[in-house]
Amino acid sequence: MTQFTDIDKLAVSTIRILAVDTVSKANSGHPGAPLGMAPAAHVLWSQMRMNPTNPDWINRDRFVLSNGHAVALLYSMLHLTGYDLSIEDLKQFRQLGSRTPGHPEFELPGVEVTTGPLGQGISNAVGMAMAQANLAATYNKPGFTLSDNYTYVFLGDGCLQEGISSEASSLAGHLKLGNLIAIYDDNKITIDGATSISFDEDVAKRYEAYGWEVLYVENGNEDLAGIAKAIAQAKLSKDKPTLIKMTTTIGYGSLHAGSHSVHGAPLKADDVKQLKSKFGFNPDKSFVVPQEVYDHYQKTILKPGVEANNKWNKLFSEYQKKFPELGAELARRLSGQLPANWESKLPTYTAKDSAVATRKLSETVLEDVYNQLPELIGGSADLTPSNLTRWKEALDFQPPSSGSGNYSGRYIRYGIREHAMGAIMNGISAFGANYKPYGGTFLNFVSYAAGAVRLSALSGHPVIWVATHDSIGVGEDGPTHQPIETLAHFRSLPNIQVWRPADGNEVSAAYKNSLESKHTPSIIALSRQNLPQLEGSSIESASKGGYVLQDVANPDIILVATGSEVSLSVEAAKTLAAKNIKARVVSLPDFFTFDKQPLEYRLSVLPDNVPIMSVEVLATTCWGKYAHQSFGIDRFGASGKAPEVFKFFGFTPEGVAERAQKTIAFYKGDKLISPLKKAF
Amino acid sequence: MTQFTDIDKLAVSTIRILAVDTVSKANSGHPGAPLGMAPAAHVLWSQMRMNPTNPDWINRDRFVLSNGHAVALLYSMLHLTGYDLSIEDLKQFRQLGSRTPGHPEFELPGVEVTTGPLGQGISNAVGMAMAQANLAATYNKPGFTLSDNYTYVFLGDGCLQEGISSEASSLAGHLKLGNLIAIYDDNKITIDGATSISFDEDVAKRYEAYGWEVLYVENGNEDLAGIAKAIAQAKLSKDKPTLIKMTTTIGYGSLHAGSHSVHGAPLKADDVKQLKSKFGFNPDKSFVVPQEVYDHYQKTILKPGVEANNKWNKLFSEYQKKFPELGAELARRLSGQLPANWESKLPTYTAKDSAVATRKLSETVLEDVYNQLPELIGGSADLTPSNLTRWKEALDFQPPSSGSGNYSGRYIRYGIREHAMGAIMNGISAFGANYKPYGGTFLNFVSYAAGAVRLSALSGHPVIWVATHDSIGVGEDGPTHQPIETLAHFRSLPNIQVWRPADGNEVSAAYKNSLESKHTPSIIALSRQNLPQLEGSSIESASKGGYVLQDVANPDIILVATGSEVSLSVEAAKTLAAKNIKARVVSLPDFFTFDKQPLEYRLSVLPDNVPIMSVEVLATTCWGKYAHQSFGIDRFGASGKAPEVFKFFGFTPEGVAERAQKTIAFYKGDKLISPLKKAF
Repeated sequence: MTQFTDIDKLAVSTIRILAVDTVSKANSGHPGAPLGMAPAAHVLWSQMRMNPTNPDWINRDRFVLSNGHAVALLYSMLHLTGYDLSIEDLKQFRQLGSRTPGHPEFELPGVEVTTGPLGQGISNAVGMAMAQANLAATYNKPGFTLSDNYTYVFLGDGCLQEGISSEASSLAGHLKLGNLIAIYDDNKITIDGATSISFDEDVAKRYEAYGWEVLYVENGNEDLAGIAKAIAQAKLSKDKPTLIKMTTTIGYGSLHAGSHSVHGAPLKADDVKQLKSKFGFNPDKSFVVPQEVYDHYQKTILKPGVEANNKWNKLFSEYQKKFPELGAELARRLSGQLPANWESKLPTYTAKDSAVATRKLSETVLEDVYNQLPELIGGSADLTPSNLTRWKEALDFQPPSSGSGNYSGRYIRYGIREHAMGAIMNGISAFGANYKPYGGTFLNFVSYAAGAVRLSALSGHPVIWVATHDSIGVGEDGPTHQPIETLAHFRSLPNIQVWRPADGNEVSAAYKNSLESKHTPSIIALSRQNLPQLEGSSIESASKGGYVLQDVANPDIILVATGSEVSLSVEAAKTLAAKNIKARVVSLPDFFTFDKQPLEYRLSVLPDNVPIMSVEVLATTCWGKYAHQSFGIDRFGASGKAPEVFKFFGFTPEGVAERAQKTIAFYKGDKLISPLKKAF
Repeated sequence: MTQFTDIDKLAVSTIRILAVDTVSKANSGHPGAPLGMAPAAHVLWSQMRMNPTNPDWINRDRFVLSNGHAVALLYSMLHLTGYDLSIEDLKQFRQLGSRTPGHPEFELPGVEVTTGPLGQGISNAVGMAMAQANLAATYNKPGFTLSDNYTYVFLGDGCLQEGISSEASSLAGHLKLGNLIAIYDDNKITIDGATSISFDEDVAKRYEAYGWEVLYVENGNEDLAGIAKAIAQAKLSKDKPTLIKMTTTIGYGSLHAGSHSVHGAPLKADDVKQLKSKFGFNPDKSFVVPQEVYDHYQKTILKPGVEANNKWNKLFSEYQKKFPELGAELARRLSGQLPANWESKLPTYTAKDSAVATRKLSETVLEDVYNQLPELIGGSADLTPSNLTRWKEALDFQPPSSGSGNYSGRYIRYGIREHAMGAIMNGISAFGANYKPYGGTFLNFVSYAAGAVRLSALSGHPVIWVATHDSIGVGEDGPTHQPIETLAHFRSLPNIQVWRPADGNEVSAAYKNSLESKHTPSIIALSRQNLPQLEGSSIESASKGGYVLQDVANPDIILVATGSEVSLSVEAAKTLAAKNIKARVVSLPDFFTFDKQPLEYRLSVLPDNVPIMSVEVLATTCWGKYAHQSFGIDRFGASGKAPEVFKFFGFTPEGVAERAQKTIAFYKGDKLISPLKKAF
C-alpha cells in the first residue's frame, strides 16, 4: 500500500489552490467540487498509467470527469502532471479563444471526452471500458498484453440522477466490466440545496442491484490512504465494475464549505485568502506551484508513464513480428486509416434490381463490410429484428461467463436504452483504435438520445445511428412512432451528417461517407417499406450529398426529395410529363455533405430561375434552405396501413404533381433566385 | 379477500381472446403482453373505482398502460367495462381514421395518457400521483375526502430499462407516493430475445433502493387471488409507492408462448384457433363476448362506479356549501377555466423601465400570478437559483415527514431529471383539475426531455418549460451549455408554442398565452443576461406571436428577430438610419402563435417587396419560413464573456447593419415575394 507523506499533502493543497485561482481569475466557474475532490484526483492520478507527452497512447488509463463543471480540477491536474497546458492557459480559463473553455472539451490533449451535460461522462466511460475489453479480447496474446488499461470516472449526484447514467450503469453491470472504476463524490449538495430535498435513494444499493461492486471512503477530504485502498480493491474486482462512494465536503477549506453557494460561483477574495493561509500558501500570491510538486508528479506520473509507453512500444514491435497479420491490422487501426479499398465491398445496384426496404439494404452493407472492418462494432437498442443491424455470423459482445458471446464479439445488445447507447458510442469512438460504433433504433427514438447526439457532433465522434422506420411509412404503429420533426432537429445541429437514402446505391453512399468520416457523426434514416432501385443513382453521385437524379432540358420545375419520396417524385415527374410539364428530380440524401460542395456544383443542381419544390413526408420547416415551396407534413402522423397513410397526406404521384403545377403557376413570370444564393 | 370463481376465469379468457382477435383482424399489433397480463387487468380493474360513463370524474382511479404496445388489452378492457368503445371500434384497430390507433392516444375516453414510447407512462403516473396528493392536501377536509384515488400502472422490461423511468421512480420514492402502484410484467422477454442478454439487474432491489415497497406474484398467468392480495397489500403501503413484480409468460396460451415471436406480430391462424379452444371458446368465431362477462363487469365495475361518482357529486355539493370559497375554486378548476381577470395581474413595462434578464422577468410573473392560480404547480430540475422559478413564499411539494414542505406545496424539487420532469408534467396535466405545471431548466437541456416534450405536443398537454440561458448569452459555460439547434428542433414539432420573448411585456404575453392554452404545450426561452424594455412592445401585440415593433414609411429592409436580438435589431436600425437606410423591426416571439393569425395580418407584418432578414443567435435552418436571408449561428458556440461571444459572432449593431446592407444590395431591383405566400 502506498505511503502518503507531506509531499502528497502539499500536492493536494496545490491542486485545490490552483483550481480556486483558476476560477477566481476568470471570475466564473465552479470551485466547490475541485476543493472536495482534489485528494481523490491526486491519489488516483498518482497510480494511473499515462504518458502526458503522448496523450493518445492506446493503453493509457482513461480519466473521465463526468461532473464536467469541476473542470478547474482537471485543468490543474493536466498542468501539474506535464500535459501541454501552461499556467498561462489556466489564467485564460473561460476566456474567448482560450484552450481552457468552461467545460472540458475533447480537443484538448488529456481531455478524454467533452463533459458538462450531466450523466454523459459516466456513460462515455462505459463505452471506453467496452472498447478496452474488445481490444484486449481481439489482440492480446499470451505474453503480449497490449491492452489492459482501466477507465476511471469522477461523478457527482447530478450524474447519478440523470436517467442516462442509470441505463449505462445497468448495462455495465450486465457486461461485468471489471475495468471500470467510478468515484462518486457524495457531497450531499446540489444547486437547489441539500440532496435530501430530491435525492435520498440508496445509491450504493442501487449499484449493487446493477451488479456493481460498491466500496466506501468515509473521509474523502483527507484520507488519502483510504482512497488508495479503495482504488486498489476496485482493481481486484475483475468481473464487476466498481463504484467508490466517497464522502466529501463541497468547497472543503472555504468559509462556505458544505453549502451550495460554493458550487457554481467563485469564492470571495477574503475566502480565497484564508483558504490559502489554511493550506500553508501565501495568501497574496496566485497560481503558485511549489517546485517539489512539479518534481513529485514528474517522478510519480510523467517518468513512469513515458517508460511504460516505451515498453509498450517495444512490446508492440515484437507483436507485429510474431503476429504479422493482427499486428498490421492493429497498426493500421492506430493510424486511423480504414483498409485500402474497403469500399469496393459496398454493394451497388441497377434499376433492374428489385425493390427493397432501405433498412434491409443497410443490413446488406453491414453483411458485406463487417469482415473488412474489425473496428466496426454495433448493435441495437433492443430492435435488432426491426433495425436489421446484425450480420448473420455476428458474435455478441458479452461477458464470457454469459455463455452467449464474449468480449471479442462485435454485436452489442444495448437493451432499451437509446440515450446510453448514444453516449456509449461516443465513448467507444473516443477510446481510439479507429473504432466505428453504430447503433440501431427507430428514427423517432433517436430523440431520446438527443443529449448524446449533440455531444457526438460537438466533440466530433464519427458514430453512426442506424435509424430505421423513418417516417409515416411506419404505418400502423401510428403517430407515437412516426417521426415528423426529427430530421429538422438533427439537420439544425452543427457537424452531423443526416442521411436519408432513397435506394441501394444511396445506402452504400451513406455508409461510405459515415464510415470514412473522421470528425462528424451520422444518422442514417432508413425506410421500413420497400423502395425501388433508381435509374440514375450511384455511390459517387450520392456521395456529394445531393445530385440531379433525372433531368430534362429546360425544366419547368425541380422536385427535390429524400428517401422514399425520391421514387415518388420520379413517378410524379412522369405524371407531369404526360401533361407536357418538364420536371427535374433532385435527390438530396444529406444536407450536410451537399453544403460542403462548391457553390458552382450546388447551383448546377438547384439553379436560378426554376421553381424548386421539396417533397418529404416530414416537417417542412428547414427546407427553405433549398426550395421555394415545400410539400411535407407539419402535423403528427396517423395510424393506418402505410400506403393509406401516404395517400391520406397527399403523397401520391398525382398529389405531388398537382402541387408542382400550383408551384409553377405561382411563380409564373417571376425572376427566381436559387435559395442557395446568400447575400452575406 | 375477493373470491375468484369461474366467471372471473371466463372474463380473463374473454379479455385474452378479444385482444388476440383485435390484433388478428388488423393483421398488425402486439398479442404477447395482453395474453400475459389479462389476469392482472381483470383483477386490477375489478377493484378500481371508475365510472365508464364519466371518464373525466376527478376522483377516479387512474390506469396507465406504460407498455403501450399492449394497447389491445386496454381497448378490450374499455369495451368490456362499458366505456364508449364498440366491437366495431376494435375491428377497426390500426385502421386509418379509426378510434383505435396502434398505441393508446389521450383523446380516447378512458385512455389516461398516450403511451408507446417506453418509460413515459410510468413517469406520467408519478405526475398523476403527485397531482392527486396535491389535490387532496389542498381540498380534503375532515369528513370530506374529495380526493383519494390511486394511480395504477402496467409496465414491462422496456419501461424499466429506459432512463426516464429511473429518474421518475427515484423521485416517487423520495416523495413517498403511497398512492402509486405499478405492476411489472416480468415476462423475461424483449424484442431481441431473453432479457438475460442485456438486463439481468435485480429490479426489486433497485426499487427498494429508491424507497419503494416491492411485492411479488409468482404466477401472474393464473393466480388471480395472488394478484388481488398483492394489490390489497400495496394499497396499505401509505408512505411508499409499490412495485408488484409479477412473473408472466408472454403470449400465454399461444403455441409460441414465452418467445419474442409473440411480442409484436399477430398469431398465426392455427395458433389462434388452438388458443380459443384451449380457453373454451369456439375456434371459428371471432370477437365473441359471453353475455355473462358483460354482466359481470356491469355489476362489479360500471354500477359501483356510477354509484361512487354520484356519491362523490353529493359530497362535493355539500362541500361547496360548507366551504364556499374552496368549493367555488375547485368547481372552477374542474370546469377548466382560469379565474376571471387573472391576467390583470400580469406585469407590464414601458421603455423607461430598467433592463432586466427575461429569466428575472419570468420570476416576476410567477410572483405576481401564483396567488391567483392555485392550479399553478412548478419547479426546476435543480436549477432554481438560475431558472428563478420559485416565488418567495413558495412551499415545497414534499412528503410531510420531510419537514421541508408538504403535499399542499406547489414547488417541486425535481432533482437533475429533465426527462422525468417533462413526463411528470404531462401526468400532472393529464390528471385534470386544470393543473398548470411548469418546469425549469436551461434551454439546452430541454433536449434531454425531447421524448416527453414530443408527447406533450402529441397529446396536447399545456405544460410550460421555463427554459433559461437561451443562447450564447450563457457566456463562459461554453458550447456544452449554449443552445444552437434547440429552437429549430422544437419549432419543427407540431402543436407547441416556442416563445422567445424580448422584454417584460413579451414575457407576460408568453405566460398569458401559455397559461391560457388548453391543448398546446409551451417552451419559454429566456435570457440569462439583461435586456432593455422596448418601445412599442405590449402584451396584446406580442400575443399575436409576431408584430411590427418599430416602423418607418417604405422600409428598405425588415429585420425580424426574437429575444435578445430584438433590441439588437433596434440598435442596428439606428445604425442604418444614420446611413439613410430605413429598417422596420419585427419581433416574432412565437412562430406557432404567429402562424395562427390571418394571412392578411401576417402579410402586414412581413409584406411583399421588402427584403426580410432574420436576426437570431441560433441555427438559421428554419428561418426560411419568414425571411429571405438569415443571420444566425450555424456552428457551436464558444466559451467566453457573453458580450465578447456576441461580438465574435458579429452580433453587434454594426454587424447586423452590415449584413442588412448586403441583403438590400443583393435583392436590389428584384420583385420580392413574402416567404409567407404559399403556392398550395
